[in-house]
Amino acid sequence: MQRLSFTVSHTATGSHARRGRMMLRHGPVETPVFMPVGTQGSVKALSSEDVAHELDAQIILGNTYHLYLRPGPERMQRLGGLHKFMRWDRNILTDSGGFQVFSLGQGTADRKPLLEKLTEEGAFFRSHIDGSRHTLTPETSIAMQEAIGSDIMMVLDECPPSTAPREYQAQSMDRTTRWAERCLGARTDAGGALFGIFQGGLDLELRQKHLAALSALPFEGLAIGGLAVGETKEDFLRTLRHVAPMMPADRPRYLMGVGTPEDLVEGVHAGVDMFDCVMPTRNARNGTLFVNGGKIVIKNQAYTDDEGPIDPSCRCSTCRTYSRAYLRHLFIAEELSFHRFATLHNLTHYLDLMRQMRTAIEAGSFTAWRDAFYAGRAAASSTK
Amino acid sequence: MQRLSFTVSHTATGSHARRGRMMLRHGPVETPVFMPVGTQGSVKALSSEDVAHELDAQIILGNTYHLYLRPGPERMQRLGGLHKFMRWDRNILTDSGGFQVFSLGQGTADRKPLLEKLTEEGAFFRSHIDGSRHTLTPETSIAMQEAIGSDIMMVLDECPPSTAPREYQAQSMDRTTRWAERCLGARTDAGGALFGIFQGGLDLELRQKHLAALSALPFEGLAIGGLAVGETKEDFLRTLRHVAPMMPADRPRYLMGVGTPEDLVEGVHAGVDMFDCVMPTRNARNGTLFVNGGKIVIKNQAYTDDEGPIDPSCRCSTCRTYSRAYLRHLFIAEELSFHRFATLHNLTHYLDLMRQMRTAIEAGSFTAWRDAFYAGRAAASSTK
Repeated sequence: MQRLSFTVSHTATGSHARRGRMMLRHGPVETPVFMPVGTQGSVKALSSEDVAHELDAQIILGNTYHLYLRPGPERMQRLGGLHKFMRWDRNILTDSGGFQVFSLGQGTADRKPLLEKLTEEGAFFRSHIDGSRHTLTPETSIAMQEAIGSDIMMVLDECPPSTAPREYQAQSMDRTTRWAERCLGARTDAGGALFGIFQGGLDLELRQKHLAALSALPFEGLAIGGLAVGETKEDFLRTLRHVAPMMPADRPRYLMGVGTPEDLVEGVHAGVDMFDCVMPTRNARNGTLFVNGGKIVIKNQAYTDDEGPIDPSCRCSTCRTYSRAYLRHLFIAEELSFHRFATLHNLTHYLDLMRQMRTAIEAGSFTAWRDAFYAGRAAASSTK
Repeated sequence: MQRLSFTVSHTATGSHARRGRMMLRHGPVETPVFMPVGTQGSVKALSSEDVAHELDAQIILGNTYHLYLRPGPERMQRLGGLHKFMRWDRNILTDSGGFQVFSLGQGTADRKPLLEKLTEEGAFFRSHIDGSRHTLTPETSIAMQEAIGSDIMMVLDECPPSTAPREYQAQSMDRTTRWAERCLGARTDAGGALFGIFQGGLDLELRQKHLAALSALPFEGLAIGGLAVGETKEDFLRTLRHVAPMMPADRPRYLMGVGTPEDLVEGVHAGVDMFDCVMPTRNARNGTLFVNGGKIVIKNQAYTDDEGPIDPSCRCSTCRTYSRAYLRHLFIAEELSFHRFATLHNLTHYLDLMRQMRTAIEAGSFTAWRDAFYAGRAAASSTK
């Protein structure tokens, strides 16, 4: 069984944007694609049916760290993997678990893992749930991702802070390369596709060097790691625009953990095919709702008597059904149903943005579409 | 426009159970009926579409106290009433707001209203949200219920604790009768049906006296108040069995705030037509799920690897889709989607119980059905 095949059908003029399709074990994925995040075996506040039938997402992301702790690798395997567990018959991409473990946390106190030791072998950490000790290595990460039944697995990588000395960055990159090779070696025949991740922070020379090392390995796709982790928007864009077009053109390009609607547009413009981010789902739960040209904060007094939908141009069930006044009421009254309505809307907004870009690339009008996108945002912010 | 018409099509033998239909402004309601509670303009964790299309509920309950504070009477009227606000085109019954205000609370500290003064005029209380002062009188209660657009409104009544001296009970009952008359007087032509509530605690003589007083007034239906408010199950059943059959047979009989599945069966057996309770929805959110013969606590270790549905005999979308193991995982991981899945199941269980009873009464087999119901519960508890 082929793990992944990728074809590019259209490339834009005056832009690196491209329109493609991945064939994976659980069906096709049209690119550029945004993948909703389902951290703990659930896209927060939604059912799998919502994600498949209302959103028509072709792929979602699962977090290996969270699923490793609960329900854990043995139980996940016994229960037949994540697709069966959460009744999701489309594709799943999993991260390696590294990002959570390497993020600075204080353990159970702040509900983040506590990294105790980092060696060539892997990462030794304590669970944020009960403080229990665990080891994350390239081999245990791949084993867990295979237990999940992931369609696209990610290599374990270290993501050092961009403020780390250049020498540490270089050493860390070399280790990440060795870990990437170990991940390839650990994958069994039953495993899904496997993507490499290149680092290098904001240093374009380090980026180029690490990309070359990872590209030389037989990964089915490559990902930009260590971007959108706190650097300025200027540094983010400069690095993105430099590295994305250098990535192998015959394999999918994935920009991890990104981003705002503008970031997605700039990512596609730079030639990226895949994105994921908690922004649409987390913002939904906080009452920040994306609309054509920007976003609104639903708790604002202005919406108290507003009988219009969140966004008149949106086709989601929330916009077709409920008013801003009602949604504001639910948010203020802390009604649980708000989370589902808002999440359905924000994810529809994100997936629709990707659909618009795919259509524009097909039509050969991506740069014009991008100009119109920014004109719309400028117009919206000038009327505020 | 007729506010309510009620017809009884079948009466049971060896039981006071009866099968009927109410015609209301927003369509028919088959009785005996259980009404899901939608406290703040939302059946907690569900969409109005869930309640109409998945549950097929014909009537829900809204809480006047909560809707009076948020969004408030003027705004509710301006927004076109609760049906339009929450996109619910079937029937709504509203309580008077009195039960919340007369429940002992400490104000904002415990999120219950603080009753400051009770006079012949009405109740003077402070909001549990911001401590602001408000007055609840028969007239303001009816005005709010009419702003909501309620299809069945309830009179404002005092519900004294059953431990109150008999003399206080008698005085309170007289005032409740006067308030009931004021409610009738306050209703406008545009108002919905209006039900009287009789009190009397556990005193059968007081109950009979108050029922007679309320029955003499031109209410479209009558309700048993002040039961299931902390008394023993024995006292509850003794009072219920005495008073329900005495209620006028040509008008709907409503037992407020009840109850467990057994309570519903005993209520129907005693001749009650209508019920409401937060139990199925609140229990759902706490992870207590009703099953044929009893209930299960989903967080129990026993369900960790259980690939079966909550209840194999249940037809709800949760049982058709997800395993106990997955639902336990969502509950433990505090995933928001759990609340909707569990609420859909518990309300389906309650509405299906009512459906079974309606069918049994039609078939002339209610007493046999009731025997089988208790045999099933005994069998289930003996296998635990």
